[in-house]
Amino acid sequence: METKAENACFGGTQGVYSHRSEVCACDMTFGLFLPVEAKDGPVPLLWFLSGLTCTHENAMTKAGAQSHAAAHGIGLVFPDTSPRGEDVADDDDFAMGQGAGFYVNATEAPWKANFRMWDYVTGELPALLGEHFAVDLSRQSITGHSMGGHGALTIAMHMPETYRAVSAFAPMANTTDSDWGRPQLRAYLGDDAEAHARHDASRLVAERGFPGPMLIDQGTSDQFLDKLKPEALATAIATRRQEATFRMQPGYDHSYFFVSTFIEDHVDFHADALWS
Amino acid sequence: METKAENACFGGTQGVYSHRSEVCACDMTFGLFLPVEAKDGPVPLLWFLSGLTCTHENAMTKAGAQSHAAAHGIGLVFPDTSPRGEDVADDDDFAMGQGAGFYVNATEAPWKANFRMWDYVTGELPALLGEHFAVDLSRQSITGHSMGGHGALTIAMHMPETYRAVSAFAPMANTTDSDWGRPQLRAYLGDDAEAHARHDASRLVAERGFPGPMLIDQGTSDQFLDKLKPEALATAIATRRQEATFRMQPGYDHSYFFVSTFIEDHVDFHADALWS
Repeated sequence: METKAENACFGGTQGVYSHRSEVCACDMTFGLFLPVEAKDGPVPLLWFLSGLTCTHENAMTKAGAQSHAAAHGIGLVFPDTSPRGEDVADDDDFAMGQGAGFYVNATEAPWKANFRMWDYVTGELPALLGEHFAVDLSRQSITGHSMGGHGALTIAMHMPETYRAVSAFAPMANTTDSDWGRPQLRAYLGDDAEAHARHDASRLVAERGFPGPMLIDQGTSDQFLDKLKPEALATAIATRRQEATFRMQPGYDHSYFFVSTFIEDHVDFHADALWS
Repeated sequence: METKAENACFGGTQGVYSHRSEVCACDMTFGLFLPVEAKDGPVPLLWFLSGLTCTHENAMTKAGAQSHAAAHGIGLVFPDTSPRGEDVADDDDFAMGQGAGFYVNATEAPWKANFRMWDYVTGELPALLGEHFAVDLSRQSITGHSMGGHGALTIAMHMPETYRAVSAFAPMANTTDSDWGRPQLRAYLGDDAEAHARHDASRLVAERGFPGPMLIDQGTSDQFLDKLKPEALATAIATRRQEATFRMQPGYDHSYFFVSTFIEDHVDFHADALWS
C-alpha cells in the first residue's frame, strides 16, 4: 500500500492511499479520514460511496463530513467508484465503465475482468483497512450519493449484520426501472432479471428491508428526479413499514451543495448507531 | 451579468456569476453565497480571497464556509484570483500571471492591460454586488488563504473604513522578502520599492496596523513556510501591539484541509465584527 497524501484535518488525518486490488485486478485509490481518537485505538467507520464520474476525491473534499466525524470520533472511508486504468474496460457513456461501477460484481465481458466493486467495497477494502489502520470493523455504517446511495442501500440490505445504519443522498432508488440502472445492470450482469433485482434499492426494501435505521434525503429540484425515482423508494418504505426517515428537501438539487447541507444530519445519524 | 449556476445550500443560495469587468478588461467570474436572510433584506458580506492557481471555485467548494455563514446570516463572496482569457497575458510560472494576480494594480506591460485585481476587488466587484444582490456594503469583512491572505491583509490595512475585521489562513506575509512576492511585485509594479512595500502585510502592520481585530492561522507543517514568512508578521504584530490573534496550528499544512478545519473560527470571528 502506498501513501499518496496525509493532511492534518480537524485534529485527525485525511489520508489518500493506493494499493493493488486483487478483486479488481488493478491499482485502487481511496481516501480515509481518521479522527484523533484513532491514535488510542480502533474507531468506528462510516463508508461514503460516491456517484457517477466521481473518484475517491469528490466527497472527501466537498462534502464537509470530516468536521462532524471528528466531533463524534468516527472514521470515514471514501472508495473510488470503479476500477480504473488503461487496461480497464471503459465506455463513451459517462454512466458506464470507469467512474460508473454501480457497486456490482460484473459477470459479462469485458467488464467481469475488473468491475467487482461489490466484493471490493464489502470484502477486500474493509479487510485492508482493518489490517493497516485503527478501524473497528465491528462498528461500520454506510452512506452514499446518487449511484453511491444505490450502493449503500443495496449493500446494507444484503449485509445487515455488517452495517448498523444506512443513509443516502439522492440515491438511484429503482435501478431496474431507470435509464440510470437498467442499461448498466444489463451490461454488467447480462439478462438475468433476478440478478438485476438484487441491485435495486426499492425492490430490496419491498422484499427484505433493513433491520436498522434508514435516512434518505432527496432534493425537490434535483435535475435527475426522473432517473432517481425516489417515489419508488418512498412507496416501498411506507408499504413495508421500514424504519426510516425519508425527506424531500425543497429547492435542493443533485450537487455537493445539497450533500454538504445535510451531511451533518447523516453523520450524526450514523454516529448514534455506531456508538450505541 | 450572467448567472452560471445557482444551487440551494444551507437554506440559502450558492451562486456563480460572470460579468464584463471594465477594470480588468475581460470577463470575470465570482461565487456568491447568500443566506436565507437575504430574501428579507441586505446581509453583511465576508470576502474570501483565494491563493495561487485558484479560481472562484476552490474555496467555494472546499472550505466549508457556507454552513457557518448561514448560521450567522452573512453572505460570502469568492472572487477569482486574476483576470483570465486568451487575450490576457500569462506566464509559464504558476506563481505569475493568470491565477496569480497578487491583488495589485499592475503598472508594467504586459500586465497593466488587465491585472488590476486591487481595484476589481475593492471597487468594481463590491459595486456590482451592491447593485444586483441583497448585500449591505456598510458591513464588510475580509479573509483569504495564502496569496489571498496577503490580499486580505493588505487591502484591509489600506481601507480600514471598509472592512470591520481581517483574517488570513497561511498568508504570504512578507512579499518583499520572499520568492512568493518579490519577483511578482517587480513584474507587476516595476522597480518601485515604495509600491512593493504597500503590498507587504508585515510592513503594513509595522507602518500603519489595522484598527479592528485580526486573526491569523498558520500550520506548523506548511510546506511553504520559507516563502510565507509568518515570523515577519508575528514580529510586526507583537512589535506594534496590533490587536490580533496569531495561531501556529501544530501539524497542519497548506491545504484546504487546513482551511476547512479552522474556517468556523474565522467566520465566527468575522460575524462578531459584522454584527456589532
